Amino acid sequence: MPPAGPRSGDAIFASVERVNAELFTLTYGATVRQLLTDLEEVEEVNKQLDQMGYNIGIRLIDEFLAKSNISRCVDFKETADVIAKVGLKMFLGVNATVTNWDAEGTCCSIVLEDNPLVDFVELPDTCQGLHYCNILSGVIRGALEMVSMKTEVTWLRDMLRGDDMFELQVKLLKQIPEEYPYKDDE
Amino acid sequence: MPPAGPRSGDAIFASVERVNAELFTLTYGATVRQLLTDLEEVEEVNKQLDQMGYNIGIRLIDEFLAKSNISRCVDFKETADVIAKVGLKMFLGVNATVTNWDAEGTCCSIVLEDNPLVDFVELPDTCQGLHYCNILSGVIRGALEMVSMKTEVTWLRDMLRGDDMFELQVKLLKQIPEEYPYKDDE
Repeated sequence: MPPAGPRSGDAIFASVERVNAELFTLTYGATVRQLLTDLEEVEEVNKQLDQMGYNIGIRLIDEFLAKSNISRCVDFKETADVIAKVGLKMFLGVNATVTNWDAEGTCCSIVLEDNPLVDFVELPDTCQGLHYCNILSGVIRGALEMVSMKTEVTWLRDMLRGDDMFELQVKLLKQIPEEYPYKDDE
Repeated sequence: MPPAGPRSGDAIFASVERVNAELFTLTYGATVRQLLTDLEEVEEVNKQLDQMGYNIGIRLIDEFLAKSNISRCVDFKETADVIAKVGLKMFLGVNATVTNWDAEGTCCSIVLEDNPLVDFVELPDTCQGLHYCNILSGVIRGALEMVSMKTEVTWLRDMLRGDDMFELQVKLLKQIPEEYPYKDDE
């Protein structure tokens, strides 16, 4: 019998299939390096990482909904909490918190104190404009679009740039009406 | 107190940090897709995936040696067994077997019945020459080079090409003398 309510990120993370985090980290690092070689412009790499993340997010949302037993969030506030407490835990195994809400409740920050993507990573001087973790903001943007929320996701703080944590700003731009047919990007 | 002998792949896999396998699979898929877009030629993509794997392998070997308590293999036969039973289990969580040894004991096949890299993957007709999992053969080649074995690693069977399993041929080309200084590819 399936559990009646939403499951915690820890419980889901413990039950899903996983791979070694270092393999993931190094594979991601090799990807970024390859993009830097192929595309040359750091700004282009940022864009591609975001787009790759978006393509992942629009598919990952299915696994998320299936495994988490979360069917619908009341509002954007609850959505942000679910990303931080369940989503990031379930996929990356990290803890995150939501903070810095604006008065309208349409913009907040998700703060990560840990991030397996950047283990062993140091940016050379030539890559100072690189948003190394842009794939992650893309994933969140893509996943939210599949549940009818058009968002803008931006890195405000980045440990690879000397900040003391990762801060991701998530801004709700538009709530797409539920009856809108999903666009198939595949 | 550290355990005295080598640890099993299962035990190590249970104890290391991990991330969600689907996230890994989709990230790898996005990488391959990106390379296909950027490089256009399937043969070029095969080469790049292999090179990315090689760069990962020469770093991953350190984690492998540290976590597995394996210090040195007696010969190439034992090495192949360790890759199949410990390495692939520890990093990908899969079971593999070694088979098809040649008379000299310098060439064998590693057979995988499962492979998280290819979940949800179907190759379009335009990509029939693609060795989708070439990153994996590159990882093995890179890791072995760091323990003084120069090898050639080739896919003989591939489930994405309609075979019933994955078969990776590992051929020992040269055993580099132990005193040889490691080449720093970084």
